Amino acid sequence: MIRHELILDGFAFEAGGWLDRVKVVYHTSPERRGRVVWICHALTANSDPEDWWPEMVGPGKFFDTERDYIVCVNILASPYGSSGPASDDPVTGRPYFFDFPAVTVRDMVAAMAAVRRELAIERIDLLVGSSIGGFQAVEWAVTEPDLFDWAAFIATSPRVSPYLSAGIETQRMALEADATFRPATSLAGGTAGLRCARAQALISYRCFEGYGLTQAEADDDTLFASRAASYERYQGEKLVRRGFDAYSYYYLCNAVDSHNVGRGRGGVAAALGRIRAKTVVASIDTDCIFPPAEIEVWASCIPGAVYKRLTSSFGHDGFLLETEQLKQLLCKY
Amino acid sequence: MIRHELILDGFAFEAGGWLDRVKVVYHTSPERRGRVVWICHALTANSDPEDWWPEMVGPGKFFDTERDYIVCVNILASPYGSSGPASDDPVTGRPYFFDFPAVTVRDMVAAMAAVRRELAIERIDLLVGSSIGGFQAVEWAVTEPDLFDWAAFIATSPRVSPYLSAGIETQRMALEADATFRPATSLAGGTAGLRCARAQALISYRCFEGYGLTQAEADDDTLFASRAASYERYQGEKLVRRGFDAYSYYYLCNAVDSHNVGRGRGGVAAALGRIRAKTVVASIDTDCIFPPAEIEVWASCIPGAVYKRLTSSFGHDGFLLETEQLKQLLCKY
Repeated sequence: MIRHELILDGFAFEAGGWLDRVKVVYHTSPERRGRVVWICHALTANSDPEDWWPEMVGPGKFFDTERDYIVCVNILASPYGSSGPASDDPVTGRPYFFDFPAVTVRDMVAAMAAVRRELAIERIDLLVGSSIGGFQAVEWAVTEPDLFDWAAFIATSPRVSPYLSAGIETQRMALEADATFRPATSLAGGTAGLRCARAQALISYRCFEGYGLTQAEADDDTLFASRAASYERYQGEKLVRRGFDAYSYYYLCNAVDSHNVGRGRGGVAAALGRIRAKTVVASIDTDCIFPPAEIEVWASCIPGAVYKRLTSSFGHDGFLLETEQLKQLLCKY
Repeated sequence: MIRHELILDGFAFEAGGWLDRVKVVYHTSPERRGRVVWICHALTANSDPEDWWPEMVGPGKFFDTERDYIVCVNILASPYGSSGPASDDPVTGRPYFFDFPAVTVRDMVAAMAAVRRELAIERIDLLVGSSIGGFQAVEWAVTEPDLFDWAAFIATSPRVSPYLSAGIETQRMALEADATFRPATSLAGGTAGLRCARAQALISYRCFEGYGLTQAEADDDTLFASRAASYERYQGEKLVRRGFDAYSYYYLCNAVDSHNVGRGRGGVAAALGRIRAKTVVASIDTDCIFPPAEIEVWASCIPGAVYKRLTSSFGHDGFLLETEQLKQLLCKY
């Protein structure tokens, strides 16, 4: 896919704050043809779904970059191109850090909507979002109901749950426990905290069964179990190595806490009732942050929505791993 | 209950290391009469079950301190009396910190066994352990099978699982991310990390449903959810305020990773097969660290064991909260 940049001359943030210049990075298929498929990415991903969803997106793949016009926008506050706390503040010439305005899911959607207008797309054939990508997708489907023909919301929710919010807070606490996080002087600040936050997040993305399948001790007589521990450290380190910084992560945590499609719209059920897209909602049976029973309830608030439960041994991360089931589901509807 | 101290003249730790003097603090009923009920406490509790299990233990309660002889030993490495990294090293006159030998669940059981010999108890009518208390109980029932008449293992396992071990590692990562943790100079070191570790642990002790019931946002139109977050911070702070230090917590995390009743005994199933106590094993339906399906499997390895699933909206913490179900279960067997 091809990388693009859009510079917005002025952006008003939902929680307050204004920037004269906001950059939005996005990827599209090389050519403008076929159906428009808009993919929303999750917390630590980027605007190139061929990179983080390779089984689903690419030439000849289910989401075929040669046949369809696929668009994906890097979310605000991400360190992968779009403006955020890690971007340089033109006034000081160093990263914004905590001077960047707080970002909400609605801000992310406003940036996506600006890209859509820039591309003069009048109709989106399919809107897809999983996890935090689903936060954006549900929010957008509510905000501009007539824009979408189909929508697929996978392992997500219309509002942050107390359970997810509790997990997000413990991740922020890990960043704050690292004395190099504040005062912010370098993007390397808070790195030990970030490793811990990511390792924590992984636990909520997986489940008991998944760890049992992949991280069992090799030796029955080891004195202290260490395999799962080394996996956790590895995952924390991996996020740091792929250029993630603690400040972007912190802002994204706050954005998760902002998610509520019902805010100012008479509640979640009323907001979901506005959706006009033909919608498929999918849960994953072992997902502990977006449990199937919860998803089934809110899916029923979307007019005509079809709800399906996928099976996986890998919890929430099943949304990235169970691609065959996803393809079958999306094919059918 | 009455507090006692036993000084052991010499203690060899399983993972290596020797101390000339180890203190073991324990509580008992005021008088030696009735059945002997031995209660093993969980990770951050103490040797006084009237304090942490008030619905179950006390005068006239289910475990009646006036009728039965109830014993509970504070585990090694706990900051609540028994020797551990927070105890004063007689050589230096300051806490041992990392100079304390690594502690395993088998060391904890060895200390309990020493208390039993000191009290000249020949037969224990009932051994009860939940969570990490269950680790000790299962280990002891395997080590000295003829000592126990009945045993109750609640929301626990015979070996640390990869999933639990992963969670324990992220808690250690939080301690390590706090720059005041190492080098150790004061028991206040690592406190910010400890708050985060405890907050993380809480998430694994509860579940999606429990947070939903107690931590939902009061206001539908709040911009950023904050109620569950403030609960997490409160729980972290609460542990610090009740005198827990990061060094004891770190050692206890390592002890969790040591748990494997099958070590050197031909595996978990063979070890469980040695148990002679009439055993009741209970799981909690929403427990994500000790899932019912897992407990049912290992319970079947204990000769004649009865397995029961309790219901709770509060995950693993149900072992402390669902006392009516527990009483019914224990009454019946």
